[in-house]
Amino acid sequence: MFDFKKVRTIDDFPTPGIKFYDITTLMNDAEEFDKAIQDMVAIAKEFRPDALIALESRGFFFGPIIAHDLHIPFVPIRKKGKLPAATFSQTYDLEYGTDIIEIHQDAVKEGQRLLLVDDILATGGTMSAAVKLVEHFKPAAVSALFLMELMALKGRDRIQGVTVNSIVQL
Amino acid sequence: MFDFKKVRTIDDFPTPGIKFYDITTLMNDAEEFDKAIQDMVAIAKEFRPDALIALESRGFFFGPIIAHDLHIPFVPIRKKGKLPAATFSQTYDLEYGTDIIEIHQDAVKEGQRLLLVDDILATGGTMSAAVKLVEHFKPAAVSALFLMELMALKGRDRIQGVTVNSIVQL
Repeated sequence: MFDFKKVRTIDDFPTPGIKFYDITTLMNDAEEFDKAIQDMVAIAKEFRPDALIALESRGFFFGPIIAHDLHIPFVPIRKKGKLPAATFSQTYDLEYGTDIIEIHQDAVKEGQRLLLVDDILATGGTMSAAVKLVEHFKPAAVSALFLMELMALKGRDRIQGVTVNSIVQL
Repeated sequence: MFDFKKVRTIDDFPTPGIKFYDITTLMNDAEEFDKAIQDMVAIAKEFRPDALIALESRGFFFGPIIAHDLHIPFVPIRKKGKLPAATFSQTYDLEYGTDIIEIHQDAVKEGQRLLLVDDILATGGTMSAAVKLVEHFKPAAVSALFLMELMALKGRDRIQGVTVNSIVQL
């Protein structure tokens, strides 16, 4: 188990009243970051995923390494306009307005076991949109894995029909 | 050496006349993506870096894995407003307008050997700004490593005083 004290907390970022969990200080400690990755890899392995899908941008700090360790394809979900080939798109609500995420239509085969990865589960809005996005691929099973989870925001309740795991519950 | 045919080319993206090198198809092939990472790790090792710094967003697909393999700290350079603690900022020119990248002021110790990583060297505008950014840390040496390099754009000429390496020259 990695040392959670390596994650720095910053008050009032990005807006007043929000406590931000800054993983850059964890990634700056090679030994503890490796432990965090191994904690995630252990849970990822149990799910036996066929492909790993990570969310822009902080999911990209974890997703490629875990996919690399598991020897499975890595697939990015990106903000609108970043992926060059044909995509599926999903709109989701932000506090003010909406945002759009995309995935390449040819990135995932039908009927696979898909593992979605991000750094933190808060309200679950983005991950819920990501789950809708991968439903285009008629997956055999979907699981979501986070380094951290903010329990009070009940993000799990928004991501239904999916196994949710996190290393640290806050 | 990885199979470069796994990188898909897309014409007229993001704008007409531009040929885009799409690495998502490479990352979708676990074996070839691993070879590409190992090609980059081999060059990275020769430089003996103390820390690895990658550029948002596509640099994040390579940087954390290479840092992980080398057991050295990973440091992200991000677009303005994404990093929560005190940062150094650098403005650089785009085709139309400017953009700003940032790095945490406490992310790198002074006098270290710093390896900067991104997916592709084109005009070198972003990497040149990244080099200016890390000069705040009075590094002992700086090197830049790319998976691909577009030779016709002469990006190397813009990144002076820095060792530049790439796996594939186009």
